[in-house]
Amino acid sequence: MQAFLIIFCISAMDLECASQETVKQGLLARGWPPIKGFSKHVKTKVLEFFSLLIKLGQDDPRRVVHSLKAGLALTLVSLFYYYQPLYKSFGVSAMWAVITVVVVFEFSVGATLGKGVNRGLATLLAGGLAVAAHQLANLSGRIGEPIVLGIFVFLQAAVSTFVRFCPQIKARYDYGLLIFILTFSLISISGFRDDEVLELVHKRLLTVLIGGSTCVIISVLVFPVWAGQDLHNLIASNMEKLGIFLEGFGDEYFKMPEDGESKEDRPFLQGYKSVLDSKTNEDALANFARWEPRHGRFQFRHPWKQYLKIGALTRKCAYRIESLNGHLYADIQAKRGIRSKIQETCTTMSMESGKALKELSMAIKTMVKPFAADIHIENSKSSVKNLDTLLKSGLWDDETDLLEVVPVATVASLLIDVVTCTAEIAESVNELATMLKFEVVEPTVSPEKPETGQPKIGIS
Amino acid sequence: MQAFLIIFCISAMDLECASQETVKQGLLARGWPPIKGFSKHVKTKVLEFFSLLIKLGQDDPRRVVHSLKAGLALTLVSLFYYYQPLYKSFGVSAMWAVITVVVVFEFSVGATLGKGVNRGLATLLAGGLAVAAHQLANLSGRIGEPIVLGIFVFLQAAVSTFVRFCPQIKARYDYGLLIFILTFSLISISGFRDDEVLELVHKRLLTVLIGGSTCVIISVLVFPVWAGQDLHNLIASNMEKLGIFLEGFGDEYFKMPEDGESKEDRPFLQGYKSVLDSKTNEDALANFARWEPRHGRFQFRHPWKQYLKIGALTRKCAYRIESLNGHLYADIQAKRGIRSKIQETCTTMSMESGKALKELSMAIKTMVKPFAADIHIENSKSSVKNLDTLLKSGLWDDETDLLEVVPVATVASLLIDVVTCTAEIAESVNELATMLKFEVVEPTVSPEKPETGQPKIGIS
Repeated sequence: MQAFLIIFCISAMDLECASQETVKQGLLARGWPPIKGFSKHVKTKVLEFFSLLIKLGQDDPRRVVHSLKAGLALTLVSLFYYYQPLYKSFGVSAMWAVITVVVVFEFSVGATLGKGVNRGLATLLAGGLAVAAHQLANLSGRIGEPIVLGIFVFLQAAVSTFVRFCPQIKARYDYGLLIFILTFSLISISGFRDDEVLELVHKRLLTVLIGGSTCVIISVLVFPVWAGQDLHNLIASNMEKLGIFLEGFGDEYFKMPEDGESKEDRPFLQGYKSVLDSKTNEDALANFARWEPRHGRFQFRHPWKQYLKIGALTRKCAYRIESLNGHLYADIQAKRGIRSKIQETCTTMSMESGKALKELSMAIKTMVKPFAADIHIENSKSSVKNLDTLLKSGLWDDETDLLEVVPVATVASLLIDVVTCTAEIAESVNELATMLKFEVVEPTVSPEKPETGQPKIGIS
Repeated sequence: MQAFLIIFCISAMDLECASQETVKQGLLARGWPPIKGFSKHVKTKVLEFFSLLIKLGQDDPRRVVHSLKAGLALTLVSLFYYYQPLYKSFGVSAMWAVITVVVVFEFSVGATLGKGVNRGLATLLAGGLAVAAHQLANLSGRIGEPIVLGIFVFLQAAVSTFVRFCPQIKARYDYGLLIFILTFSLISISGFRDDEVLELVHKRLLTVLIGGSTCVIISVLVFPVWAGQDLHNLIASNMEKLGIFLEGFGDEYFKMPEDGESKEDRPFLQGYKSVLDSKTNEDALANFARWEPRHGRFQFRHPWKQYLKIGALTRKCAYRIESLNGHLYADIQAKRGIRSKIQETCTTMSMESGKALKELSMAIKTMVKPFAADIHIENSKSSVKNLDTLLKSGLWDDETDLLEVVPVATVASLLIDVVTCTAEIAESVNELATMLKFEVVEPTVSPEKPETGQPKIGIS
């Protein structure tokens, strides 16, 4: 049965390619038994699909657990049908418990809770209003009733649909509004055929509550996935990705490709790319996280907005890194002589910013005050000053070709921007540390001293 | 009724701020009648909310039309309840038509069609499989039946939930898989209590088809909103936004702020920011557009992938512009003397790239071959060469402070990157023009000649 479903999905996905191929090869040129070729094609695709599924499971084993949890929740609510006493009290209304489980059960606790609360409240509110609408429509007689009901349904559907366009409401209450439209329409219309509207609302509400609670309870108790924890980790790992790039950038940029090796096959330098498009994911996780109760080190009113602020600054830094990355692979590169003059300073700037970002990432992960990061930021700022001094001292002689200076100057300037961005990120991480009262742990191993002057810890 | 709903939404949105305020002010310090203050607060919020709604409608009047369409569709399917002959044949199953309309009716034709087809096919497939499961379970006797059914429901829910994690399937068939789980569970479980499973499937399928067709027909016939057209416009307008920035950048960067005016209040220079985060929106629109039939100038197999490629290149250019924007407002700016030496070349580079982007945007909008864009790109490339010549000729004297050269060199280098990006964008727009056989219209007004050499039209 499942195999049938999977083959359907694959063939649907593959229809486009397959049909294009058919056209390419030409129907006449292919001879008859095309079925053999097609079945081989399907076999390859099925194998590819299974290896993709295995990879999905290996990448994040919580996905496998979530699927089993969804199966469990659904099997549990189907007891409403199998167990006679339960079926006696709810009858076909038990269907709503099943529907609720299917649509409410989401990957994270926050998403499940958000949808559950939205569904519950919307059903309650819409149920109440639909009863009122039914009573009002009842007053207008058998012929007037459907007209009045129709007007009510039209008006509420139109207004609620329009309100769903409001971005602030869409972010948190979109599902609630959908359920509001659904429940109000169903109950007020059913009232035309069935006068037991109150009982209908009562049963609906009860089954939705049972379905919703089943989801929430399983979601919270069985290997819970917290959106807040995911957002926390995402912000930290994004910072770490930028740190890895910056740590590697200096050496990679100033190294001359001597033995014809290509610089482009450096996967550790490509990790930052996912940061560029992380906004949607961060926003969604923050929205889910707001529904979550206290768990582990996260309170109910955890400062998720501060996480989004840190995320935005990290992305700003990633845009600069994207520009830097362009220079890594640029065709025209400055001669070794010119680059070597600022190599040390630029490498330090990049390396120290990278270390600072990795320290900040680690500080978020462990929720410990980022002392070492401040020192690295001081070091990177000192390098900026060193670069200024170098440039002022008339680093280049008269024979230096300005054309060759430009790319190096650009890289230096982008690195200065990165240092500024890193300092901004550090500042907002420090704000977060103050808000959440991060643990203060004195560093056991003293980090390297800055190159010039004394480090002023905590100035950034 | 609607007012009640709106006030609920606003107060829910506002609860957080309100409760924080309460804590801040201190409960004791506030005296008794807090209700007056609260009602004033709610009044302000309601007024703000209404002006937000009016703005939403003014920004895109299609939203108002969509809301009315949703109301119309829902009122139409509710005839199943009001009209006796219809109710006689479907009974409470008519409910599924109402549910289908509420959940399937989306803003664009593509999204509605995609959801409708997903829902229809998933109901058909799951219905068929559920009947088979019901027959199999029937063989195992009254006690074995719920156990066999339970195992089926668990397995299909777990596998389908896991398959939903697959990104390629999630993009197009996520809703179908959800409905598959829902329908299979409901029908196979209902079979335990009601032996008329086939009739159940038949009625369900028919009502879903009626609900889905109502949505699709209203969506297509009454002021249709095409996701493909929206994607087309979005790609063009994103390019235009970058063009507007680049056209303004040169003058803005080289202008010295003499009368203490701030450069930051230039809204036309901030328009590009929305391009940075447009990936999610573009991907969603492309997914919807793939479901859409031929409409206007768009075919069924329109090359939406090429639009996404152009979108990605536009974003790449936007990242460079984000770096440039940082230099616009940088504190340390090079002295007028230094800047003025490359002012003309840089302004031309920026201006010509901007014009090229605006031409390309216009070419996409009007579906006419972008001849003029090629000329502007040639002009910008000539400026890059001019800059090279200027730099080689030893532009700066010995007294020039290199520290002051760095920011100007960076801006020049970023502009060179922008010229490269623009040429890449032009190339992919030309590919699109070839794919879609854009109209060839010879320019009536001859655009400016490039500064050096002859323009080679069409080389980019």
